[in-house]
Amino acid sequence: MVRNKIPASTVRRLSHYLRSLEGFAEEGGTVSSEELAARGQTTAAQVRKDLSHFGSFGKRGLGYQVDELRDRLRQILGVDRPWRVALIGAGRVGLALFEYPAFRSRGYECVAIFDNDPEKVGQQWGDLPIHSVDDFEETIRRLQVELAILAVPAASAQEMARRAVEGGVRGILNFAPIRLNIPPSVTVEDVNLVMELEALSFAITQSERGE
Amino acid sequence: MVRNKIPASTVRRLSHYLRSLEGFAEEGGTVSSEELAARGQTTAAQVRKDLSHFGSFGKRGLGYQVDELRDRLRQILGVDRPWRVALIGAGRVGLALFEYPAFRSRGYECVAIFDNDPEKVGQQWGDLPIHSVDDFEETIRRLQVELAILAVPAASAQEMARRAVEGGVRGILNFAPIRLNIPPSVTVEDVNLVMELEALSFAITQSERGE
Repeated sequence: MVRNKIPASTVRRLSHYLRSLEGFAEEGGTVSSEELAARGQTTAAQVRKDLSHFGSFGKRGLGYQVDELRDRLRQILGVDRPWRVALIGAGRVGLALFEYPAFRSRGYECVAIFDNDPEKVGQQWGDLPIHSVDDFEETIRRLQVELAILAVPAASAQEMARRAVEGGVRGILNFAPIRLNIPPSVTVEDVNLVMELEALSFAITQSERGE
Repeated sequence: MVRNKIPASTVRRLSHYLRSLEGFAEEGGTVSSEELAARGQTTAAQVRKDLSHFGSFGKRGLGYQVDELRDRLRQILGVDRPWRVALIGAGRVGLALFEYPAFRSRGYECVAIFDNDPEKVGQQWGDLPIHSVDDFEETIRRLQVELAILAVPAASAQEMARRAVEGGVRGILNFAPIRLNIPPSVTVEDVNLVMELEALSFAITQSERGE
C-alpha cells in the first residue's frame, strides 16, 4: 500500500496543484514545476518530489501536460468519481457544511442527514429529509454511504463514529473535539477549530518569546 | 526562536494533552506518560519527546504533576491569556464559527465582525454590530485585534488578509480555499474542508489500490 508512505503535507499540496491546474484556462498547454510551485507557495524541487511518489510525470525541459497531470491528480486524490456522503448532526455546523458549495462541485454528494433531536427529524434540508439515528446503520448501508461528516457534540461522537463504521463507512471527517477510536481500516480527518486557534496562539507566543 | 523547530503534529498533540489534563478531576495528582499517551492515542515515548522540546517535566518513576503540567501547557500554547479575535465574513460559515461555544470558553474572544454586504452591516450578532469593511484596518487596530478568522469567499480573501496584516493582526485562521500570500511574521492556519475530504478520498483510494 502506498498510503502510509505519503505525508499529509504532500496530499495537501497535491490538492493545491490540482486547484492550480483547474485554473488554467487553455486545454492542451504545458506547465512547469516552477509555475506550479509559485502558485502553491512551495519550490519546484518539492513539486517534483511530491509527484514522484506516483510515477513519472512530465518531460525534462518541457514541463507537464496540463490536462494529463490534472486528470492524473484527480485519480490519485480519488476525485475522478463521486463520493456518497452522510451528514451526521443537523446543527449549526452541519448546516454550514451542508450549504458549503464546494462539496457538491467536487463530487462529494450528501445523500443523507441524521440527527437525534425529534424536533429536527422529518424536516427537510433541500431535497433531503433529516433521518432519526434509530436505524442509522441500516440507512447508511442501504444508501451506500462511503464518507461520514461527523458534526455532533463530543459526547456522542465516538458512539456515532462506531455506528458509522458498522454501517460500512470508509472515512470520517470529524468536527467533534475528540480523538475517535476506530479501526485502522477507516480513515479519519479531524477538523478541530480550537486546535487550529491554539496552533496560531502557540506560534505567536513562541515567536514573541524568541524575539 | 523555538517556533520553526516544532512540527505541527507536535503542537496538535500538545493540545490533546492539555484537553486530557483538564479532564482530570482531582487537583494535585500525578499522571504518567503512559496515561497521557493512551488518551492521546500516541506512545509514552512520543509524549516525552513532545514535552522535551519545552524543558524538563516530571520525575522519573513519578510522572507529571497534573496541575503543573496543565499550567505549563497553557503557557506554551499561549492560552494562559485571552486573545482578541475579529471575524471577517458574516455568512453561514461565519455564523457557525461565531456560535461555536468552545472559542469563547478557551479565551478566544470575538471583539468585532465585518462584512462587505450593506444589508448585513449594522445588524447585531449577540452584543456585536456587524461593521462595514470600509474602515477595517482602523477598526481592528483600535480594537487591538490579534487574530482574524477569515470566512470570506476566495475572491476577496487575499485582499482582506492583506488588510488584516495592515491592521496589526498576528495570526489568521483562513477558511477561504486559497493560499494566502502574507509576510512570514504573520502566522496562518488553513482550514480547507474540500482538502480534508480529498485527504479522505486519497487515503481510501490508495488503500483500495494496494489491497
